[in-house]
Amino acid sequence: MKTYLECLPCFMQQALRAGRIATNDEKKLKDLLSSVGEMIKDIPMQNTPPETGDAIYRKVREITGVNDPYKEIKKQNIAETLALYPEMKNIINSSEDKILTAIRFAIAGNVIDFGVNKEFDIQQEVKNNLEKEFAIFDYHKFLQHLEKANSILYIGDNAGETVFDKILIEELGKQVTFVVRDIPVINDATKEDAIASGIDEVAEIISSGTSAPGTILNLCNDDFLERFKNADLVISKGQGNYEGLSNEDRPVFFLLKAKCPIIANDIGVKENDIILKGINI
Amino acid sequence: MKTYLECLPCFMQQALRAGRIATNDEKKLKDLLSSVGEMIKDIPMQNTPPETGDAIYRKVREITGVNDPYKEIKKQNIAETLALYPEMKNIINSSEDKILTAIRFAIAGNVIDFGVNKEFDIQQEVKNNLEKEFAIFDYHKFLQHLEKANSILYIGDNAGETVFDKILIEELGKQVTFVVRDIPVINDATKEDAIASGIDEVAEIISSGTSAPGTILNLCNDDFLERFKNADLVISKGQGNYEGLSNEDRPVFFLLKAKCPIIANDIGVKENDIILKGINI
Repeated sequence: MKTYLECLPCFMQQALRAGRIATNDEKKLKDLLSSVGEMIKDIPMQNTPPETGDAIYRKVREITGVNDPYKEIKKQNIAETLALYPEMKNIINSSEDKILTAIRFAIAGNVIDFGVNKEFDIQQEVKNNLEKEFAIFDYHKFLQHLEKANSILYIGDNAGETVFDKILIEELGKQVTFVVRDIPVINDATKEDAIASGIDEVAEIISSGTSAPGTILNLCNDDFLERFKNADLVISKGQGNYEGLSNEDRPVFFLLKAKCPIIANDIGVKENDIILKGINI
Repeated sequence: MKTYLECLPCFMQQALRAGRIATNDEKKLKDLLSSVGEMIKDIPMQNTPPETGDAIYRKVREITGVNDPYKEIKKQNIAETLALYPEMKNIINSSEDKILTAIRFAIAGNVIDFGVNKEFDIQQEVKNNLEKEFAIFDYHKFLQHLEKANSILYIGDNAGETVFDKILIEELGKQVTFVVRDIPVINDATKEDAIASGIDEVAEIISSGTSAPGTILNLCNDDFLERFKNADLVISKGQGNYEGLSNEDRPVFFLLKAKCPIIANDIGVKENDIILKGINI
């Protein structure tokens, strides 16, 4: 997905949100916004938003001196979602279509996104998503691909959401490789967050090699690229990964909630719609 | 009111909103956002937001070549509110406290603000405001000042809202001077808009001399300053005028809806609260 003009004020908002978590120093924060403001003219609109996000959050780290502003928030979100795990397992075990219920939970977890959201209620989101209609629902195709797959590459998104990913991975019943960001960016999951969420019990965890808040192939390492090429099934969680991968030419299944009007419009759905969308299938 | 850091991304959003109404040329719009981005570092945070807004909207006019992007929208809003006028007069005429009901309507009209809002429903707003509790309610003091006043300076805000201002002016029963912006900025009322709203039937209309989307005394003309100094009662509508006048040392009564979290916080109320607040009273 290309960068839209509406993404530009949003980048500035994101910088301020992350900056305010990192520091109370109003002068540093003004410097941060001034720097982001000066970056606008050089942002190539054909780039994907996570490529620009990479530069923006780099600037946040540089000016505030804080490498991982969302560290404590990520810990809290993981603790909160881990506490929901037993109840969610019960719901899945008594549901008619366990994989579909697990997909619904995995998308509910996608609301834990500080790139887009300021506030959310994860328990409410789980409840809503149990009944919510999908705006795009390539489930039948997904099951076909799943059945034939030996290896699954599962590209994670946010910390905390990872607990819900674990639940889905358990239902997939296949050999899964779970992909995380290389270093902290926004509240995206790193290896440490994935392990804290128990992903290591159900999947191999690898880094895509990127510090961008999304998966952009030319910023990824060779190991990831090899696995992306060869995986029987690729599952991509969330907006940042969609933005980076939506124009690639291999089959990918995207699980996400369209949390901003721009991405909703790009996909052709409404804001807050939930999506299970396959490309090149 | 000073400029808060949160105002800076908002200025960029406002520039894009006005720019998109003025032109479909994506390159011009990118240039506009780049220019606004470069302005950020030079924005003095001790300035009031309308001072910066003045520069931002000047840039919108300069880069898009469109002097009054909201011209058609303003016409529509005036037509829509004029259509409500008879019904609102009926409600006032059958209400126990006519002035208070007219104040409620005048505040409801303040929702017609494209600086803050993308969407609103004016009829719904009128209904809501009939019952809504005021977060600050200096009504008793207002009535005292009104009773003693011979001359009232009424500083208008948005086009369309002006029809509701007319209704309040009719209930005040005093000699009123109605103040408009000198040239079009956002959807703020100009002399033309005030006349189209029928204000000329109930008040003298003057320009404050400013192109800023708010009243900043050092940008106003001598005629306005003289009247501001000498008026028995000053009524100020909306956020932009509050932002410009909240630290002045003469009595002013502000009527507004706190439409953004920043101004709500500055006043000490919650977002969407309605306010009748007097200073130096």
